Amino acid sequence: MSEPCFDVAHLGHVEVLTDRFDESLDFFTRVYGLKLSAREGGSAYLRAWDDYEFHTLKLTAAATTGVGHIGYRVSSPQALERRVAAIEASDYVVHGWTKGDAGHGPAFRFEDPFGHHFELYWETKRYDPPPEDRPALKNVASRFVPQGAAPRRLDHVNLLADDVTTFRNFMQTCLGARVTEQIRLDNGRLGGCWFTINNKSYDLACTEEHGRGRGRLHHVTYATDQREDILRAADIFLENGVHIETGPHKHAIQGTFFLYVWEPAGNRVELANAGARLILAPDWETVTWTETERKKGQAWGLKTIETFHTHGTPPVNEIP
Amino acid sequence: MSEPCFDVAHLGHVEVLTDRFDESLDFFTRVYGLKLSAREGGSAYLRAWDDYEFHTLKLTAAATTGVGHIGYRVSSPQALERRVAAIEASDYVVHGWTKGDAGHGPAFRFEDPFGHHFELYWETKRYDPPPEDRPALKNVASRFVPQGAAPRRLDHVNLLADDVTTFRNFMQTCLGARVTEQIRLDNGRLGGCWFTINNKSYDLACTEEHGRGRGRLHHVTYATDQREDILRAADIFLENGVHIETGPHKHAIQGTFFLYVWEPAGNRVELANAGARLILAPDWETVTWTETERKKGQAWGLKTIETFHTHGTPPVNEIP
Amino acid sequence: MSEPCFDVAHLGHVEVLTDRFDESLDFFTRVYGLKLSAREGGSAYLRAWDDYEFHTLKLTAAATTGVGHIGYRVSSPQALERRVAAIEASDYVVHGWTKGDAGHGPAFRFEDPFGHHFELYWETKRYDPPPEDRPALKNVASRFVPQGAAPRRLDHVNLLADDVTTFRNFMQTCLGARVTEQIRLDNGRLGGCWFTINNKSYDLACTEEHGRGRGRLHHVTYATDQREDILRAADIFLENGVHIETGPHKHAIQGTFFLYVWEPAGNRVELANAGARLILAPDWETVTWTETERKKGQAWGLKTIETFHTHGTPPVNEIP
Amino acid sequence: MSEPCFDVAHLGHVEVLTDRFDESLDFFTRVYGLKLSAREGGSAYLRAWDDYEFHTLKLTAAATTGVGHIGYRVSSPQALERRVAAIEASDYVVHGWTKGDAGHGPAFRFEDPFGHHFELYWETKRYDPPPEDRPALKNVASRFVPQGAAPRRLDHVNLLADDVTTFRNFMQTCLGARVTEQIRLDNGRLGGCWFTINNKSYDLACTEEHGRGRGRLHHVTYATDQREDILRAADIFLENGVHIETGPHKHAIQGTFFLYVWEPAGNRVELANAGARLILAPDWETVTWTETERKKGQAWGLKTIETFHTHGTPPVNEIP
Repeated sequence: MSEPCFDVAHLGHVEVLTDRFDESLDFFTRVYGLKLSAREGGSAYLRAWDDYEFHTLKLTAAATTGVGHIGYRVSSPQALERRVAAIEASDYVVHGWTKGDAGHGPAFRFEDPFGHHFELYWETKRYDPPPEDRPALKNVASRFVPQGAAPRRLDHVNLLADDVTTFRNFMQTCLGARVTEQIRLDNGRLGGCWFTINNKSYDLACTEEHGRGRGRLHHVTYATDQREDILRAADIFLENGVHIETGPHKHAIQGTFFLYVWEPAGNRVELANAGARLILAPDWETVTWTETERKKGQAWGLKTIETFHTHGTPPVNEIP
Repeated sequence: MSEPCFDVAHLGHVEVLTDRFDESLDFFTRVYGLKLSAREGGSAYLRAWDDYEFHTLKLTAAATTGVGHIGYRVSSPQALERRVAAIEASDYVVHGWTKGDAGHGPAFRFEDPFGHHFELYWETKRYDPPPEDRPALKNVASRFVPQGAAPRRLDHVNLLADDVTTFRNFMQTCLGARVTEQIRLDNGRLGGCWFTINNKSYDLACTEEHGRGRGRLHHVTYATDQREDILRAADIFLENGVHIETGPHKHAIQGTFFLYVWEPAGNRVELANAGARLILAPDWETVTWTETERKKGQAWGLKTIETFHTHGTPPVNEIP
Repeated sequence: MSEPCFDVAHLGHVEVLTDRFDESLDFFTRVYGLKLSAREGGSAYLRAWDDYEFHTLKLTAAATTGVGHIGYRVSSPQALERRVAAIEASDYVVHGWTKGDAGHGPAFRFEDPFGHHFELYWETKRYDPPPEDRPALKNVASRFVPQGAAPRRLDHVNLLADDVTTFRNFMQTCLGARVTEQIRLDNGRLGGCWFTINNKSYDLACTEEHGRGRGRLHHVTYATDQREDILRAADIFLENGVHIETGPHKHAIQGTFFLYVWEPAGNRVELANAGARLILAPDWETVTWTETERKKGQAWGLKTIETFHTHGTPPVNEIP
Repeated sequence: MSEPCFDVAHLGHVEVLTDRFDESLDFFTRVYGLKLSAREGGSAYLRAWDDYEFHTLKLTAAATTGVGHIGYRVSSPQALERRVAAIEASDYVVHGWTKGDAGHGPAFRFEDPFGHHFELYWETKRYDPPPEDRPALKNVASRFVPQGAAPRRLDHVNLLADDVTTFRNFMQTCLGARVTEQIRLDNGRLGGCWFTINNKSYDLACTEEHGRGRGRLHHVTYATDQREDILRAADIFLENGVHIETGPHKHAIQGTFFLYVWEPAGNRVELANAGARLILAPDWETVTWTETERKKGQAWGLKTIETFHTHGTPPVNEIP
């Protein structure tokens, strides 16, 4: 048995594209409750109140929607070297080094077989709160302000891919990721995979693309401290005319308590709470769900709304 | 900079001694809500409903109270070899290999300078639920039964030591632990240290011994999914005549929402909830609290009850 | 303007019929978490832990399912006389006095135009807990035991009627009830009415019968202290194989946080939490929802499951 | 047995005096989360988001602190006549009719033997939200905005009196109040009384004055929907430098989950949650606590902080 790999430390940030930048920014700050670190060159850099880095969401004005790129922070400079060597030794598309965004240092960019762009980086910019944003307690990253839903930290991203097995190989090769749970469809294909590179039960999921899209985003998610925060957020979304797609409810897979909404440009955004669940076992065995098993306890018995299986960004009808 | 060490996977179990075995066992099962895996040779092997191993609490009938030993599971057989080599190369007292308790394989035993016994092990016995304890969802370890407080998993243990700095050296050398938070007293000594070896904010804490005890236990803690579970537990403890020492409240240090009670033999037991807090930064900088800083937000302003600073097990007056 | 009438104090109990008595009783006690006060003559008398009366649910073995009768306690002996006089002066079917069930004194029975049996009573039997059920705090009715969902008290009952306007007249005439909210369908008919006779936002609801049934029950509901208790209950129901119909979610109407399940005989049972909502205004104006308004925020946007509109007990196909 | 009296509908508003008006107003709006209906003549009229009246808190600039007056709304014009007649027939000090504050019609003013001013009124001004404050759901009074603690509605007020028995007579005579719970001290005096005039377990409490003050306020309280809202509020208060006196915790008396803070002028303000507790029994028997009984489960065993027994407003040393 090989040893588990901890070269990648955690999901660092997600770049989300929007063709309604002002409305999306208003949503993410005033309603969803992220904080604005900076605006620079057509992008807004946002973070949750306890995210330690300068940003975890890069919101970028664009002609379309979906995901720009996904950034992971590694565990050390040496780990970065090991990961880069592994990726370069593979057949995956490599874009090479960039000097990094506003919030971090040099990043190594590469691409999965379905057109999603990834980057790995070590050097980062810790968020340094100005006096008015300094917390009462020095062990959190900034002041807790109950603005909108106000989640605590970035949690995970969910991508779409035509072939989840192929995507799984990519994650294992490039990030050394472990599969904590997966769905085996009756047709033999993988319907979805949930990946982790640390003790979280997952920080990236990939589910099967049911449209003809490429490189699409299913959703990006922030974590709340309690389930009650999500119930409270549902009221806030309702008061603000936000499209609530489904939830609050609990997924059978991963046991995540969830709420999905669409931000003004149509990107699906989630709030989630995992309770005290962690993957502490170093030899965790992948949990494989059949279609039947999954249906049994899915969302405490609730039938999932149809759009959850079809909607992604950008929408397929907008793809040229 | 050296790379973070992940040789140790997680806190595996704590052995708690009791001189009122039957009452303690009744408390831990019926009121605190752990499940009994087995009784064997004067000990009861207990686990929370989502602990994946056979046991996380070994309750042992004894002439005294306190902690028997603390077990950590390592990340791989190779990691175990590395840890054993590091410990043997140190000056700490080594007891060597045991064949392991009911719930795991061979364990390497050693001792901190204050008389607490530790062990490291790789091979373990996963809990295999009998039909009546099989969960509805296959990604949890056993059926959730709302018996008593019913926490989800083992969280951490808190030991007492005459010299916290000396203890810190022990944890860094033997377990490769990181210090996430610590208290620097006005007299220059360390008042307490919180250690982690994974993404939890801590799984072991050490605070300064204010009695003349040796090898004493301050408390052992299980985690609940939500803070509400702890408020609910307070009512359950009250109905069952359990001594509630302090809480529910929130520590400034680590932001833990807590409730402390004494089980019938006097060992302090905690329920805790950390919300979505994790230590994801691979280069987390230790947060050092001065006495003044700590007082400011301690328990939302609540003055800590005196016994919290003096009571440990075994009580000092029972030490020969 | 006439003065509000407070002759009727509160919903006292609901009799539920079951053709699977043993299974239903096991559900209501072990899973739903009510306490058994007594078994007598084919019925079990049950109460929630803070219900002050001997019983709030009378579970009766029968050849069918649905509701046996609904009991309201009045505010005084004089109030009972006034109500009886008002009912006798009306055209509604009167069954007259009975000596009362195990849990209360003489009751005056009458019937709504759709075949539901009601009774009013003043003399009652307070629950007198045996030593093992005495609470730690003397201001609650019995010991809180976290057995199953363990709701706090009876909340309301929901009946079905072919003509809600006719039912509304009945409630106003016989109980002096106020309508706090109602649905006005696009066809001009009332789709549902929520009635109160105290400061609760409702303790009885009537919705339009969409089957050809008569005297049918839509559901009976107990209240929990917190919304978290309902989320927790969803897990308990899932673990026990209970059919979860819909929820946890929040109704637009009345703002009730809800969870609907079917007990083994098919009767729909709800857990609900109203938060701090009370109808304190003595001149509360009925809130009338159009179909469009209702859909907007129904269950935070969730489409209601079809069975919620069609299933009642007894099922229509079982009616001879 | 006499019938229960429902002439008084509910606590309507409390006038709080402040000698730091701007700071107090900032606290009550930005941090505590009330909404400003109007400012007029040295007072600010405030309400919680689901209070149906124009205001429930009148904050008045003054040379001192404490309570200005307490307003109760009656159940009907006839009920007002009955109450006025009863008060005029008593020996209590009567101030007579005023034309009413900004938020309501004519009010009848009178005084308890300890200098607290009361008023009763029928005609009121319902809050009519401007477009930007209109809620998504028409059955709540205004839009829910998660600004600060954002409680749902006014709950109760707690006054101090030298002789609680004398105060109890006043409440029974003038308001027809019922005593739901009380403390009988070992010296035979009443230590505190909790009064209700509807189904709430109390909307006014009176505890024994331990200073030499007259007409003093112990605290004023708003209700939250969930206990979690109070835990969340504790973090908000901490971040805003608000003095947290005690809590969050649960009182043995009334089972209220509470958090006490001091607003900038020193008036004690509470957030409270009663869960699903209501006094539905028309013949509720007063619960009388001895000192011993009360201590047993007070705040889940927590010793109450000393200031809770001594601090009131205005502070005694500021009384000329």
